Amino acid sequence: MYITQGLHRSMQQQPDAIAVRYQGNGLTFAEFGGRVARLAGALRSLGIRDGERVAMFSLNSQRFLEYLMAVPWAGGVLNPVNIRWSAAEILYSFEDSETAVLIVDDTYRDTGAQVAADCRSLRHVIYAGDGETPSGMLGYEELIAQHEPVEDALRHGNDLAGIFYTGGTTGFPKGVMLSHANLYTSAMNSLMAGSLGKEARFLHVMPMFHLADFSAVNSLFISGGRHVIVPSFDAGTMMESFASEQVTDVLLAPTMIQMGLTWLEQNPDRAAQLDLSSLTGIRYGASPMSQALLARLRQRFPKAGFMQGYGMTELSPAATFLLRENHSDEAVSSGKVRSVGKPVNTVEVRIVDPDGKEVPRNTVGEIAVRGPNVMLGYWKQPEATAQAVRNGWMHTGDGGYMDDDGFVFLVDRIKDMIISGGENVYSAEVENALASHPAIAQSAVIGVPHVKWGESVHAVIVLRTGASTTLEDIQAHCRAFIAGYKVPRSIEFREALPLSGVGKVLKNELRKPYWNQ
Amino acid sequence: MYITQGLHRSMQQQPDAIAVRYQGNGLTFAEFGGRVARLAGALRSLGIRDGERVAMFSLNSQRFLEYLMAVPWAGGVLNPVNIRWSAAEILYSFEDSETAVLIVDDTYRDTGAQVAADCRSLRHVIYAGDGETPSGMLGYEELIAQHEPVEDALRHGNDLAGIFYTGGTTGFPKGVMLSHANLYTSAMNSLMAGSLGKEARFLHVMPMFHLADFSAVNSLFISGGRHVIVPSFDAGTMMESFASEQVTDVLLAPTMIQMGLTWLEQNPDRAAQLDLSSLTGIRYGASPMSQALLARLRQRFPKAGFMQGYGMTELSPAATFLLRENHSDEAVSSGKVRSVGKPVNTVEVRIVDPDGKEVPRNTVGEIAVRGPNVMLGYWKQPEATAQAVRNGWMHTGDGGYMDDDGFVFLVDRIKDMIISGGENVYSAEVENALASHPAIAQSAVIGVPHVKWGESVHAVIVLRTGASTTLEDIQAHCRAFIAGYKVPRSIEFREALPLSGVGKVLKNELRKPYWNQ
Repeated sequence: MYITQGLHRSMQQQPDAIAVRYQGNGLTFAEFGGRVARLAGALRSLGIRDGERVAMFSLNSQRFLEYLMAVPWAGGVLNPVNIRWSAAEILYSFEDSETAVLIVDDTYRDTGAQVAADCRSLRHVIYAGDGETPSGMLGYEELIAQHEPVEDALRHGNDLAGIFYTGGTTGFPKGVMLSHANLYTSAMNSLMAGSLGKEARFLHVMPMFHLADFSAVNSLFISGGRHVIVPSFDAGTMMESFASEQVTDVLLAPTMIQMGLTWLEQNPDRAAQLDLSSLTGIRYGASPMSQALLARLRQRFPKAGFMQGYGMTELSPAATFLLRENHSDEAVSSGKVRSVGKPVNTVEVRIVDPDGKEVPRNTVGEIAVRGPNVMLGYWKQPEATAQAVRNGWMHTGDGGYMDDDGFVFLVDRIKDMIISGGENVYSAEVENALASHPAIAQSAVIGVPHVKWGESVHAVIVLRTGASTTLEDIQAHCRAFIAGYKVPRSIEFREALPLSGVGKVLKNELRKPYWNQ
Repeated sequence: MYITQGLHRSMQQQPDAIAVRYQGNGLTFAEFGGRVARLAGALRSLGIRDGERVAMFSLNSQRFLEYLMAVPWAGGVLNPVNIRWSAAEILYSFEDSETAVLIVDDTYRDTGAQVAADCRSLRHVIYAGDGETPSGMLGYEELIAQHEPVEDALRHGNDLAGIFYTGGTTGFPKGVMLSHANLYTSAMNSLMAGSLGKEARFLHVMPMFHLADFSAVNSLFISGGRHVIVPSFDAGTMMESFASEQVTDVLLAPTMIQMGLTWLEQNPDRAAQLDLSSLTGIRYGASPMSQALLARLRQRFPKAGFMQGYGMTELSPAATFLLRENHSDEAVSSGKVRSVGKPVNTVEVRIVDPDGKEVPRNTVGEIAVRGPNVMLGYWKQPEATAQAVRNGWMHTGDGGYMDDDGFVFLVDRIKDMIISGGENVYSAEVENALASHPAIAQSAVIGVPHVKWGESVHAVIVLRTGASTTLEDIQAHCRAFIAGYKVPRSIEFREALPLSGVGKVLKNELRKPYWNQ
């Protein structure tokens, strides 16, 4: 079991089918596989030995996809760089993992060079941009042109395939070691859920360094589906790509979904010209989908089904799926749509107490996961590994409960519910309403103490450049979308929201000043 | 990755859902899993150590399904007995594999006892029948009642899960060693093909000792679908079960499909009362589906899709699937329906020359297969293993070619095509027509030499008890179903057809007398 398997299969089965579309150009599986085998040859000639690390620091591109296949093909180990990190964090991860080769694109050329200058483990930097190769770097296209294709090293099973650094909230990040079997079995879960099959045309709009997107990469190679790539998220580019590439599937953060809908509303003439009917699968993660957002999406994408995934890097990454059928009106009214769904096929999920014993249903505990997708461990951190993985069970550190039907609910989400005057208000729903306000770029909704109602709805708002608004205006806007008791009672403006390493809003930081008093 | 994983998941996720239906009774996953864990406890107390072999010699039953999960749960290795074998062959396989425990049902109690009397490796015989436990045997239900449930041994990955003996045409059979990962990944292919999901109710009518059925067992445990079991094939029982259990999926040999249709035609009153609308997935193997048979099936099962699998025990077992969409009218007219389809997701298939090099498309060679489903090897036969599996590629010994679209065609089938006066006549199609004749129990159609046409169509026929017919009568019957040039020009009657160990008609033996002259 090895993550290049599907590429081999498609090179043999459908050599002339389009493997990847990027910036208006297409490559067949034969062409793409040929470039991968040559890039692998170049990496070998640069001294990459079995199990050695190769990093990529880049926006999304066809070359990123080539990297993801060429490194395992060469026998190496992936280390995709979180593009939101500081140079210091990147340097740490390279030296910690003893990364030998770095590939950079135009966007990260300078930061990459800066890191490389300080890094003791790096032997080579490859420039995968479109300009002239900077001195001290090797040219990506030249390397491919100069090297013959090599045979796949066929590392497999429990062999290390990649080290994926997770943003530690305390101290420096940890390197999560994932094997070929981890990644391959995880990728099969999407296919077993009826998603990302051979007819799929998937838009890589989430950053490709992120395991959520890489898992889709692996699913698509297994099925033989098509990759469509855009450099990064931009609402307009995304919508144009949906139409021009007849995209069928996409993975998005809920905020991206909102921004996409807002773009359509703000560009009605262009929106009317776009044929978005091909989009049938919208996957999302990290936060629930509100009834209001679901309704808006259904109107725009009547054929689309929705699927949510919950997981973490240590789980390669999915542990649960909230499937299409769990987004029905019934699922909305029963509240199942606020869960993260049920364990994926290859996985068992239990809610456990501190002793590792399963707690009764509807009781909050720690979410523990067992299956072939559980990581090999943390790189060079046997103690942290032993603490996280006990008897084969990954202890996620996430709080949650399981209901009588086996649906898993995250406590983070429960915490993110505001109880105001006995009514439940879900922050996400209010944030959805705020997102369509023309002056608002971003928002985070929290509960703040209130003498009469217990909590009241408070919105922290980042304005669009040059825009202004008032509480009254915002309240009037929200009333068109959500019930009166959900409308913010107070607001504050900020320059930016505090974000975690992976881009989640740190709501606890926002809550702190209100609740500490 | 271990084959009991799905059972654990369902015991936790849907303890009260029905796992298995047999003889009008149902067991929930909690009940079934509890029995499995107790039976595993009994096996351990009988001294079954990790990796030790336990055989089952039985018709299909709920207890057979329990055996298939309890042996790996106990850490043991499965050895399901081919019920068509002679006592000598079974004895050989037990001693070859050092099988320590045998479980027998009522049907095979006496043969089992006979084998046990001669077998040096067997320590215990367990009687899994409904009568009184014979002396010298242990009672299956008593063992379950007397033992506490034990923890799953959790053997996994490349650990040996079963030894599956294949009928060798020369000498004694070979024991194919399959690991947990072999069986588990193979089972996922069905799920990735959109079959045997959680809503499935699968009828086990093919013998459960056979890997084709066991693969469905594993798929269903992974998805959490329902098992419906009948002891063995009987056309009427099968149709009644389809209706009473609202079966959605079934795996059948093409002859069984014909016999089922014939039963419906011969029992029109009962057939009219049966609601067969739940059946949506009909899988078959071993021979192609003729246009005539497809048309008959579509009329009876308008909602059903068809899927063919090709493989062998050494491949756990599927290598290719001919999917639903490859049974369209277009696939019939293009001839794709006569192929075995394309490689399953986890597999690469190549047609190779004797040096192992891939031959050009449409060129006949040996079918070679690579993937995580390729066996560990032949038990105690390293030389035979090295000959079969080279560089990870299983050399099947089957001749075939691959067309420009990647569909694989078996040469056996090409040989089974008769060329008469320049027209291609597929034996299966003629056999399908013959199967609906009221006097004919079985038939095999071959080409025999003909001075003018090259070959002419000849039918070898086994009559139903007490029935008689004539060539003219048969020709008149066939003309209602197939074109004139496909109608047999000559016939012969036999008491029985010569069969291989796995029940395939040995057509070469039938052809020999005509072609040797």
